[in-house]
Amino acid sequence: MKVRDLGEFRLIDRIARSLPPPGEGVIVGIGDDVAVLRGSDRHVLATCDIQVEGVHFLREKITPYQLGRKAVAINVSDIAAMGGVPRYLLVSLVLPKETEVEFVDGLYEGMREECSRWGAEIVGGNMAHSPGGVIVDLFLLGEVEPDRLLRRSGARVGDRVLVTGTLGDSAAGLTLLLRSEATGSDVHRAFVLRRHLTPTPRLWEGRAISRSGLGTAAIDVSDGLASDIGHICETSGVGVHLWADAIPVSDAARAIAAAVGADPLEWALFGGEDYELLFTAPADRAEDLAHWVQEETGTPVSIIGEVVPADQGMTLIRADGSALPLQKGGWDHFRK
Amino acid sequence: MKVRDLGEFRLIDRIARSLPPPGEGVIVGIGDDVAVLRGSDRHVLATCDIQVEGVHFLREKITPYQLGRKAVAINVSDIAAMGGVPRYLLVSLVLPKETEVEFVDGLYEGMREECSRWGAEIVGGNMAHSPGGVIVDLFLLGEVEPDRLLRRSGARVGDRVLVTGTLGDSAAGLTLLLRSEATGSDVHRAFVLRRHLTPTPRLWEGRAISRSGLGTAAIDVSDGLASDIGHICETSGVGVHLWADAIPVSDAARAIAAAVGADPLEWALFGGEDYELLFTAPADRAEDLAHWVQEETGTPVSIIGEVVPADQGMTLIRADGSALPLQKGGWDHFRK
Repeated sequence: MKVRDLGEFRLIDRIARSLPPPGEGVIVGIGDDVAVLRGSDRHVLATCDIQVEGVHFLREKITPYQLGRKAVAINVSDIAAMGGVPRYLLVSLVLPKETEVEFVDGLYEGMREECSRWGAEIVGGNMAHSPGGVIVDLFLLGEVEPDRLLRRSGARVGDRVLVTGTLGDSAAGLTLLLRSEATGSDVHRAFVLRRHLTPTPRLWEGRAISRSGLGTAAIDVSDGLASDIGHICETSGVGVHLWADAIPVSDAARAIAAAVGADPLEWALFGGEDYELLFTAPADRAEDLAHWVQEETGTPVSIIGEVVPADQGMTLIRADGSALPLQKGGWDHFRK
Repeated sequence: MKVRDLGEFRLIDRIARSLPPPGEGVIVGIGDDVAVLRGSDRHVLATCDIQVEGVHFLREKITPYQLGRKAVAINVSDIAAMGGVPRYLLVSLVLPKETEVEFVDGLYEGMREECSRWGAEIVGGNMAHSPGGVIVDLFLLGEVEPDRLLRRSGARVGDRVLVTGTLGDSAAGLTLLLRSEATGSDVHRAFVLRRHLTPTPRLWEGRAISRSGLGTAAIDVSDGLASDIGHICETSGVGVHLWADAIPVSDAARAIAAAVGADPLEWALFGGEDYELLFTAPADRAEDLAHWVQEETGTPVSIIGEVVPADQGMTLIRADGSALPLQKGGWDHFRK
């Protein structure tokens, strides 16, 4: 059997089952985006995320500076979803010998800037020659106070589902980059390209959620809303109803979707790379939490659904009341 | 300018100079194999090391199990050189879609086994699709008591230079793998192949050195003796005399070198991947330390040279008294 046939998530399950039971120091281990390790006063958060040329990016579609910023931002986003803060970054760089030094300069300028924005430091790494394209693999260490750790596993039946910002913008930006017929106003173009090329991790939003004590589960939207709510449902042992009309989509994504005949809701559900925070909170506190995060950070928060018993599965409820079984269908690195 | 023209070490220097000054929490930052980060009672050690198909390994010359063991071992070796112990491993895997699941199983079996040998746990990672070959990028966290941290920078003029085990075996093993005319006895072949394919990190030796309080500087021999002693000299601001006759070479490496008309001393100096520990100690305690490490761990330790003032550079002294300027000439990932 090939890894393509098994798929990423079943392969990870298979690996996880082959490992010995985690030791006492491991609070969250394999299967999550971030490992949580018991520290003396704060837990250590450790995550890695890779950018492979030809898979995650095309060299002619992103500048080295943007690539550096994005590579850091997506790792910070993972830390944000745990309620923590980033601290130290290791950079593993695989480069063709023919790479221009200016490429490396630009990449590091982007990484430095994004790190300094979120209070992280580049402290080391590794360099290797690539027989193929450029690969940027980042390892980010962070920390979180034990009582402020957000996990995927705490969603309870009746909780509301919340999300920061808007979804589908990154897919709209990618569409602009890949399809020459895709058009839009300058403002819309600039917005979705920025969202795709230099996403903003929702660090302060994550800190606000963890400080509130009201978040029961959280994850960042990297693979797509459908896939990422699926991770929460699976880990928490629950199902979900998502309200299609409540899913926040920007005017820019709507306009670009209209121009190319795409459905912006599909982008929101399956596009991925939005790096918004998706979280749950008790029904009677969800509005308070949404308002509070918005007030603290300026980022809008939408209530987009409800946690239901596991046997009800994952369902998208449309405005007309019709229900659609929600396939995970997010980004699987070996299948798509 | 291309990265090939600048070379790995000058590129790292260039990057290091571009970074803001390290914060208070950073004890050892960029430029070293391992970042050392201040913890509350123990320092955190963070390192990464990558294995790229076609650069670091050939798929037909190493089994997935051996690759898994080696990838972990070379990271543990970096932690050993700091006097610390490994704790947690993140695995970043880039795989072609056509990869057999059995390959991943074998790789993880090797990583699991090597981790359990050294008290480390696999706690997470990341998986991505590769448009080229297999890439295994490991991120290892360890810890060390503050008073037991070994660094590259403490070598003082007059110190002796010591090394564990034998050097050049890994190059002999690589020669066997790549050159069909290379022969040797079964025992010799098995020994050098094991040294190349599944090296043993010198963890307990590193712990013994750090416990002794006598080691003034340390590094692991990954790029080759000449290159790695060069790192100690540069960071410590000193030069070195290495005594050619004292450099430990195994019977196996000698025999295989004779069979292919190679110089085993060249393998020891420039071959790399031996993962022995290279360290320095005050002249009047060097013999004690060598004996003690050997007694504690069973691993032989050789005294192979002397630290001299920086202006004397790095010199290889032969048995006949002749002196040869020692070029770093170790493995540079962009030049060779």
